[in-house]
Amino acid sequence: MNVYEQVIELAKRRGFFWPSYSIYGGESGFYDYGPLGVLLKDNVIRTWKEAYVSEGGIMIDTPVIVPESVFRTSGHIEKFSDLATECPKCHNREKLETVMKASGNENVINDENQANEFLAANTVKCVKCGTRITKAFESKQMFKIPDQVNSGNLYLRPETAQGIFVNFKLLNTVFRGKLPMAVAQLGKGFRNEISPRQGLLRMKELNMGEVEVFVIPDKKYWKELIAGDEIKLVPKTGPEVSSDVRSAFEKGIISSNAMAYFINKTYDILKNVGIKHENIRFRQQHDDELAHYSVDTWDAEALLDDSWVEVVGIADRNDLRKHQDATGESVSVKVDDADVIPSIIEPAYGIDRMVMSLLMNSFYTRENGFKVLRIPEKIAPYHAAVLPLVNKDGLDLLAKELHEKLLLNDPYVYFDQSGSIGKRYARQDEIGTPYCITLDHDSATEKTVTVRERDSTKQTRISMDSLIEYGIIGNPEIRKFRETLQ
Amino acid sequence: MNVYEQVIELAKRRGFFWPSYSIYGGESGFYDYGPLGVLLKDNVIRTWKEAYVSEGGIMIDTPVIVPESVFRTSGHIEKFSDLATECPKCHNREKLETVMKASGNENVINDENQANEFLAANTVKCVKCGTRITKAFESKQMFKIPDQVNSGNLYLRPETAQGIFVNFKLLNTVFRGKLPMAVAQLGKGFRNEISPRQGLLRMKELNMGEVEVFVIPDKKYWKELIAGDEIKLVPKTGPEVSSDVRSAFEKGIISSNAMAYFINKTYDILKNVGIKHENIRFRQQHDDELAHYSVDTWDAEALLDDSWVEVVGIADRNDLRKHQDATGESVSVKVDDADVIPSIIEPAYGIDRMVMSLLMNSFYTRENGFKVLRIPEKIAPYHAAVLPLVNKDGLDLLAKELHEKLLLNDPYVYFDQSGSIGKRYARQDEIGTPYCITLDHDSATEKTVTVRERDSTKQTRISMDSLIEYGIIGNPEIRKFRETLQ
Repeated sequence: MNVYEQVIELAKRRGFFWPSYSIYGGESGFYDYGPLGVLLKDNVIRTWKEAYVSEGGIMIDTPVIVPESVFRTSGHIEKFSDLATECPKCHNREKLETVMKASGNENVINDENQANEFLAANTVKCVKCGTRITKAFESKQMFKIPDQVNSGNLYLRPETAQGIFVNFKLLNTVFRGKLPMAVAQLGKGFRNEISPRQGLLRMKELNMGEVEVFVIPDKKYWKELIAGDEIKLVPKTGPEVSSDVRSAFEKGIISSNAMAYFINKTYDILKNVGIKHENIRFRQQHDDELAHYSVDTWDAEALLDDSWVEVVGIADRNDLRKHQDATGESVSVKVDDADVIPSIIEPAYGIDRMVMSLLMNSFYTRENGFKVLRIPEKIAPYHAAVLPLVNKDGLDLLAKELHEKLLLNDPYVYFDQSGSIGKRYARQDEIGTPYCITLDHDSATEKTVTVRERDSTKQTRISMDSLIEYGIIGNPEIRKFRETLQ
Repeated sequence: MNVYEQVIELAKRRGFFWPSYSIYGGESGFYDYGPLGVLLKDNVIRTWKEAYVSEGGIMIDTPVIVPESVFRTSGHIEKFSDLATECPKCHNREKLETVMKASGNENVINDENQANEFLAANTVKCVKCGTRITKAFESKQMFKIPDQVNSGNLYLRPETAQGIFVNFKLLNTVFRGKLPMAVAQLGKGFRNEISPRQGLLRMKELNMGEVEVFVIPDKKYWKELIAGDEIKLVPKTGPEVSSDVRSAFEKGIISSNAMAYFINKTYDILKNVGIKHENIRFRQQHDDELAHYSVDTWDAEALLDDSWVEVVGIADRNDLRKHQDATGESVSVKVDDADVIPSIIEPAYGIDRMVMSLLMNSFYTRENGFKVLRIPEKIAPYHAAVLPLVNKDGLDLLAKELHEKLLLNDPYVYFDQSGSIGKRYARQDEIGTPYCITLDHDSATEKTVTVRERDSTKQTRISMDSLIEYGIIGNPEIRKFRETLQ
């Protein structure tokens, strides 16, 4: 089994996530987050939110149902579709891109006629049964809801962005006319994928965290770009380089100052949630890959098993003018006495892909075959588990008492008294709990406990008072212990 | 203007919420939460979540898109509809109930034929143009999404509950077979209302916080019911009484021990978010009002202007057996060596209605005509605002420095340096900020600031060090000051 399959198995067994509606035979493209998955996802969202709100960003929350007029303006009604194929024999449906790649064709085709000509002239086979495929068709990616009460259609949004754009003027008034203005939105997006697959990586209903940063084009807001870490960058014009974003901007590899800033910020967020430095790269999209609304996009990709998978897209887009043209409502702002229409840098995060990527990056198998999730301690569902060594001599009661005291400062502390201590350590390792706190016979007399660290399995003894006073994360005794493990 | 209209006006002007898609002419039944609204709603959600998760409840997160088979089992496909009317002249659509009430008929009619007979025999008029209405029809409340890729229809869920029910067995395994088991879910629900209106009170897309508590019928889990406050109770069989839930259960006014427990818990949550004791009542639904899935329901209602509005519904429901019958998957659990199918107590919270109710309950007009939101300090969007008295003599810099230090412990501190100090106090009053921290010329030399409390407008002087060390909420000097205001 590759890492992907092992994570999927563990996720279901331990309650991180699983395919939806399984008792009804399942519905492909939908996943449920279980109790541990909700905690993990919440921590990813918190990390993302703090990165933007701490800088003065604001958040709004708009409906997932959107009237047709908005998506007509944005171009989604006309252009948001995939070219797809259906096998004439087994009726398996795939994206055209998928069957072409499987038959060894790397060309990118975006036009239906062109696709049909290609399929007539070349042998492209069904990935399931091998039958030759001869026709492609356009498959709309938005879910349409015929409005049964009023006239006109409604759509489920494929991105949260338009809900921000249509409110730009109102929000900029609340923001007192200032730019840059960063408006974030967290919520569901919907894409009617032809062939949903791969766990949380390609779903029909997804969790998105999008940030729309309104800027004056070409203005250098982030003059003092942080150099930051060296990041793998793959520009569309040349080979991969390793560079900090400041140098990359100065050398023209990244064309805008704002784009450079948000590449670095995104890199930090991905690293903080637990994707390893060496498994992150930023790849600039080629012109034929760009979404209809974008003039330049850099994708943050994570290396999962042997594939680079898009996790975040940072697009340079220009939607505001379209809404002004369609509605007659001005979107311009006054800058140096001139009216200027802001352009938009949009870092759009796939929250579910971040969750899946961090799980695959933290998955580790010990020499004895036991599985561990080496999730960063602030991202893990639980910070610690309290375990009485045995359920007698008052140890269980003492442990429960400690657990209750710890909960007063930190709700993310688990309690487990069933099974051998080794089995309980293994359980916590599998769900990524960074510390196990074991109470033994000395605990009652000495008021100390054993703290076992997940990755090293090393143990230290610390005082119960220290845990009660300082909690788990940030506890000075635990911090000191960690330093000895480096 | 009544309180409702004043809150709607303030909400839009200050960025709490506003009707969606206004630059496109609007789409009735949809609202956007703005920056302050998101903060306020997040605080309501946190209060709700803490009340359940702190007791060992777990959360899951399932899709809003649901296949037809699930809602066929639950009865929603067949039964989740309203009787509606359309004016033959002006084509205004309303719920049958609305036009009947407006014409002075309080009867409850749930059957289409019966409704048409009634309309033939009685004069019921259009609420807009006065034309006589003669026909009623059934209007389905679920949004249907014809699946363009696969066969079969999909639906937008009208409640989050079914996503929990179809996972019951899996979750109970994670819960190691224990009961009672409380599973909460927060998310969007969708209802195709005939005539959406009233701001956040009747929307097509709403935020729900539902808790499914699985229990063995008739088992007294909460033996030691907390007596709690005296609550207004309106049982279906008799007049309103004022009673704590323990006495109400003992006297048989509330029939189940679990229902009594969750009525009290819901009362606490509503009071904590800022709905006044005297404006809360619990009303038991009459048999002809009950949803198709419920055998007993108590609604928590809030008094808004002169109407009691449902904010929470606590239903005793029995869905598990239906899913077992439909799928053949067992939902029974072992209790005392017997197989038992749990029943369900479901406290279902309308998050948007809680937000609207708390705003209307906290709205207050001072004698000078200025408006104040007296929101509880933990629920308010901002905990405090830092205001330099003047923007010179280094006071603005000193204030900014204090603001930055406060942000390290509490991101919900605002900074405002524009306009007179009176104007700035008024602005903060309107958005419910409980404390204004003003820096004057003594602040530089004495390291003290003036703290002005919102409701009393009284002021006290406290040290900057105390604010930096202890923050705003929970600061011992501020607590002491508050005590003098009682």
